[in-house]
Amino acid sequence: MPAVVPHRFLIAPSGFKESLDSTEVAEAIGRGIRRALPGAITERIPMVDGGEGTAEALARSTGGRLVHHQVSGPVGDPVDSHFALLGGDLEGTAVVEMAAAAGLRLVPADLRDPTATSTRGVGELVLAALDAGATRIIVGCGDSGTSDGGAGFVRALGARILDVDGTEIAEGGAALAGAVRLDLTGLDPRVRQVDIQVACNIHNVLTGERGVARVFGPQKGASPEQVETLDRALTRWAELLSTTCADTLEELHLDVATGPGTGASGGLGAALAAVCGAHLRERFEVLLDGELSGIDLDAAIERADIVITAEGAVDFQTPRGKVPAEVARRAEAKGKPCLALAGSIGEGATDVHDIGIGAILNIITIPMDLAQAVAEAQTLVADAAERATRLLVIGATFDAD
Amino acid sequence: MPAVVPHRFLIAPSGFKESLDSTEVAEAIGRGIRRALPGAITERIPMVDGGEGTAEALARSTGGRLVHHQVSGPVGDPVDSHFALLGGDLEGTAVVEMAAAAGLRLVPADLRDPTATSTRGVGELVLAALDAGATRIIVGCGDSGTSDGGAGFVRALGARILDVDGTEIAEGGAALAGAVRLDLTGLDPRVRQVDIQVACNIHNVLTGERGVARVFGPQKGASPEQVETLDRALTRWAELLSTTCADTLEELHLDVATGPGTGASGGLGAALAAVCGAHLRERFEVLLDGELSGIDLDAAIERADIVITAEGAVDFQTPRGKVPAEVARRAEAKGKPCLALAGSIGEGATDVHDIGIGAILNIITIPMDLAQAVAEAQTLVADAAERATRLLVIGATFDAD
Repeated sequence: MPAVVPHRFLIAPSGFKESLDSTEVAEAIGRGIRRALPGAITERIPMVDGGEGTAEALARSTGGRLVHHQVSGPVGDPVDSHFALLGGDLEGTAVVEMAAAAGLRLVPADLRDPTATSTRGVGELVLAALDAGATRIIVGCGDSGTSDGGAGFVRALGARILDVDGTEIAEGGAALAGAVRLDLTGLDPRVRQVDIQVACNIHNVLTGERGVARVFGPQKGASPEQVETLDRALTRWAELLSTTCADTLEELHLDVATGPGTGASGGLGAALAAVCGAHLRERFEVLLDGELSGIDLDAAIERADIVITAEGAVDFQTPRGKVPAEVARRAEAKGKPCLALAGSIGEGATDVHDIGIGAILNIITIPMDLAQAVAEAQTLVADAAERATRLLVIGATFDAD
Repeated sequence: MPAVVPHRFLIAPSGFKESLDSTEVAEAIGRGIRRALPGAITERIPMVDGGEGTAEALARSTGGRLVHHQVSGPVGDPVDSHFALLGGDLEGTAVVEMAAAAGLRLVPADLRDPTATSTRGVGELVLAALDAGATRIIVGCGDSGTSDGGAGFVRALGARILDVDGTEIAEGGAALAGAVRLDLTGLDPRVRQVDIQVACNIHNVLTGERGVARVFGPQKGASPEQVETLDRALTRWAELLSTTCADTLEELHLDVATGPGTGASGGLGAALAAVCGAHLRERFEVLLDGELSGIDLDAAIERADIVITAEGAVDFQTPRGKVPAEVARRAEAKGKPCLALAGSIGEGATDVHDIGIGAILNIITIPMDLAQAVAEAQTLVADAAERATRLLVIGATFDAD
């Protein structure tokens, strides 16, 4: 039987947190594959998930550019932020990555009070994108450090949130408990004209048992009391949005308190939908839709013999909507084998075999600490890709008697 | 094209020093393979190299037994030692592992004087094996802590080494400088009647530029002066052996100073050949000769679809006669693919691809220190074997358009 060796590799990795971005991971994997199989054709799609690095990666992959812009950070201090203007066929599309203006990394550890942090900077980025001529905006959610229901965001766009005395309430989620009126008269009209597609986790909802406060409050630093305070405040906010923006929400068929994605990025999703008429969508549906993002993963899978993804840590969380899970799901749908390189392999990693990842490959080669693994990540990834390819080739050229 | 998945795996690993013996490594690999491929047939051949663990592994694999016996250790103190009596078809064959009586591990670090350590215990083991009824003895060389040219060994057998005054010289290699007569009248006659096969590195020779003193003296703790002293003493010893045992050496066609294997285990090889008429042979030729050792690696390779070997550290030294190199060489000769699991992957590891090892697999999965890697080695090895098998299967079931 003649040997058939896979030679068209699709490389679609996540970035490795604190170490390599997805473009660097993809390059390293490609290098390793070609060392083992010099004739291999490697197509690289550095993956994005809406969180940190999304704007930069999409700017790069479409030949667009990153626009730097200073905004109000999550705790009020100005922060250097950015948004992307995509290139090529996607000129006119901006990518606003919420983490670049209100991400958890921008909240100093000693100021982690999710009842007080604000998404104001995200609104400022959207205005800057409109000023730059954007006619469509992709908002990437993920890695957020806020839980203000998007209150800061809508105020940056010109809305006012007033208490019983007609005074503007304070920044942050907790203050929404005292909100009695949402005044949209000063809202920048462009935000209702532009097409806004929100790439988010649609399982996140604004209020209740599975709401923002209870699910994400604790990990953003909220005490049990703050969690309850915040949930009551966000419930009040949901009422205000649903009465003020009833028409838009009806058009979207969206319950702003418990509808899919309303809890994205600490409730930013709710405000984006109600106030701007934005579409809250499953993140990979937006980010991997070639006509929106320039990334057509399905078409690339179709062209490939085999798909290689990667993640900094492969463990029990991987199947729950992480990049490798999405890549594997789409590969499986097309009957293409998929394997995953892992910066580290943790508890429950073998669960990924149930979701279409046929094999996992570890990159660490000798006893070493995390700092060394991070420092040498590029070499480790390339070497691991080489080893994986060699094994694949052994399997492929295997000849039974 | 129908998928053909390898299902007959030959597992032929080395042990992992300070961690798992080769039997434990083989069991762990088998476990991992069957997790990935429940229908796999796994044949295990824990490998031996003549050094530490050889006697125990051969006793186990042939259904024989280990005989415990106290002997004079390399620095004179008694040490608990052992030899193997093989079972099954090989009843009557004993395995004397020189490291069990005179290994480097038995020499306390503060007493590492290679001019003084003695192989007397090895002779005592041979006598014990003869007393137990052995008609053939395999002597495993490797991991030695001595450089006495086998002087202690032959004295344990009843020989006397005398100085110019007719007095017995001291123990150790340096004292051989004063040896003027080798008296074999008291030699136990059985040692010349029994068949002795020495499993050694035949590249080791007794004297000169590539001799025992210059090549191994420094790593056994000799100063530059001691190296010269020792080489002169061993040269004198070679003269004495070649005159006293001229007939035997002629029969063996062996130059006792520079012939193949004469330098094995600090020159023990020279004494074994000259005094006992033992055959100095390439170690794997002896240890993997089914009729001698019960291990018929070639026949097992013939039965297998694929061969998996393993080593504690795969690096630039691996191709230089280590276990995985021998396994790969024999697998390649039969056209069977071979891969190697590695406790760690060091500098120059990819050199193994030139000697028939198609792929290397690392076992470490997360940043960890050596102690943790050693403690968890069995799990790490099994998990790595599972990952390797999954990749092989992906390769094997790969289907090009």
